[in-house]
Amino acid sequence: MKSIAELTEKLLAQDRRALSKSITLVESSRPQDREKALALLDTIMPYTGKSLRLGISGTPGVGKSTFIEAYGQYLIQQGQKIAALTIDPSSKLRGGSILGDKTRMPMLANDPAAYIRPTPSGSLLGGVARRSREVIALCEAAGFDTVMVETVGVGQSETEVANMTDCYLLLLQPASGDTLQGIKRGIMELADIVVVNKADGALLPSARESAGHYMRALSLMPRKMPDWDCPVVLCSSLQKEGLEALDQHIQSFMTQSRDTGHFENKREQQLRYWLEDETIACLIERFKRDPQIRIQFAALENKLTEGKSPAALAADFSNKILNPDIL
Amino acid sequence: MKSIAELTEKLLAQDRRALSKSITLVESSRPQDREKALALLDTIMPYTGKSLRLGISGTPGVGKSTFIEAYGQYLIQQGQKIAALTIDPSSKLRGGSILGDKTRMPMLANDPAAYIRPTPSGSLLGGVARRSREVIALCEAAGFDTVMVETVGVGQSETEVANMTDCYLLLLQPASGDTLQGIKRGIMELADIVVVNKADGALLPSARESAGHYMRALSLMPRKMPDWDCPVVLCSSLQKEGLEALDQHIQSFMTQSRDTGHFENKREQQLRYWLEDETIACLIERFKRDPQIRIQFAALENKLTEGKSPAALAADFSNKILNPDIL
Repeated sequence: MKSIAELTEKLLAQDRRALSKSITLVESSRPQDREKALALLDTIMPYTGKSLRLGISGTPGVGKSTFIEAYGQYLIQQGQKIAALTIDPSSKLRGGSILGDKTRMPMLANDPAAYIRPTPSGSLLGGVARRSREVIALCEAAGFDTVMVETVGVGQSETEVANMTDCYLLLLQPASGDTLQGIKRGIMELADIVVVNKADGALLPSARESAGHYMRALSLMPRKMPDWDCPVVLCSSLQKEGLEALDQHIQSFMTQSRDTGHFENKREQQLRYWLEDETIACLIERFKRDPQIRIQFAALENKLTEGKSPAALAADFSNKILNPDIL
Repeated sequence: MKSIAELTEKLLAQDRRALSKSITLVESSRPQDREKALALLDTIMPYTGKSLRLGISGTPGVGKSTFIEAYGQYLIQQGQKIAALTIDPSSKLRGGSILGDKTRMPMLANDPAAYIRPTPSGSLLGGVARRSREVIALCEAAGFDTVMVETVGVGQSETEVANMTDCYLLLLQPASGDTLQGIKRGIMELADIVVVNKADGALLPSARESAGHYMRALSLMPRKMPDWDCPVVLCSSLQKEGLEALDQHIQSFMTQSRDTGHFENKREQQLRYWLEDETIACLIERFKRDPQIRIQFAALENKLTEGKSPAALAADFSNKILNPDIL
């Protein structure tokens, strides 16, 4: 591999291959790669933070990839460069596919103004890849104006993506009363903007009706940002309709977010979350990998046969190895 | 609160109030309670391990509580004392209900041979309460023959419960082809026995057909225990039918598991998982709570404004505070 200085230089010069290499580097779990990744991240930090970070959430089947394809193309027409961190659905069970997202988003995949990076679900930790924040930073350093982060409708990963983006879109589809009730309150509460996708053809009347239901549901929930009522926007990713209206809502949200200081506070808070999450991840990794700790831990396992409770052994051991007397 | 020695004595004398108090103690997050809980757990460890630990898994609506009620009563008729650690569905969003599980299982709730302990979902960590293993141990010390642990169909919690039980039942319902495909392979792979619930009335033909589908699906999956083909058992919790046949399957499974050494290996492995999970949980807790660490971490947060990457700061900090030079 080329030197980190060279890689950094090319990344900042918006070289796509350098971006791909950088992402592979930060996603690597090899300790020697990690050292290089940290050096890279430290160097590029001053060049990050300028993109709009957009969370794209919704259950499987709601049309997230078609939406990313359509809205991504819309943004490119406006002169933007866009990156999309997507979840590779083909790798859900085991294995994976290299071509998965190329075929899901054929237009973006071939557009020089777009960069798509599929995350194999296998590498997920609590739903979202542990390295997503680092990948966002790399995309920002490589000059992308909007970075979309896809998340797939289950619990913790929703919150994680909301905690690393500026504006959070929840995609829903035209639905009947029963399905409406199945939408978890906790997931709706995260939304800054709700998009009713598939508002076209025979589904249009049902989409309009659903939008009304969603608005009533949202009106009962606490606001995420003062003076911002989460709008419900009808959209057809297939017909490419409603994208301009959606874009205006996103821009209104961002303007208000910046004007009120909400944006700055959130970014600052997110940086602290990142530091805390990553510290915990490092502690766990070190506990699981450090040869000296493993030897000590194996000795501890042997004490289990003496009838000691794991709870007490664990408390004692963790107290001993986590030592706050630093520096 | 009474002394731990007195509580322990009453717990071992199978006093129900002592059991409830003990569970409340181990579930408490107050540091001074934790010390007492560890003393209690250490004392009772020699009296644990004799129960059959049964995992009860299935998505919401499959009839888990009706099943626990029916099979629990069946076991009581055979002379057993049973405990059920259930998930309180009413507390899913926020708040909770004290009476939730009493009304879900009216017969068991009033049976002196049964003990039901609802876990508020709010206290869950990764789906299952962190303290579930400790609660199982307390129930065993209190003399229960079977401890059922309910888990509610999403990802990680399934695996966690499989990792703390001897036999894992997956409850499914009569289903059409589409729904069949929606059942995740990873969840089916965990099952030792599949129960098709609601096999009664108009659903009976569909239940039989589904059982065939499930068996074909299972035949494509790797065995969890050598020479054990996961059976598919029809059952009606409502009509209390199929419970005896199911019980025989569970007994066959346990006999084979014990005879082949599978049981002993699994219990030993589970004890090691417990130790490892609990050590990690203690490390995280200490990192989040220790006043000295919090002061150091706040100083670290201030460095974020200097443009350092959180990744590098976290790696450095975790390396410093996790110190393997013990004893």
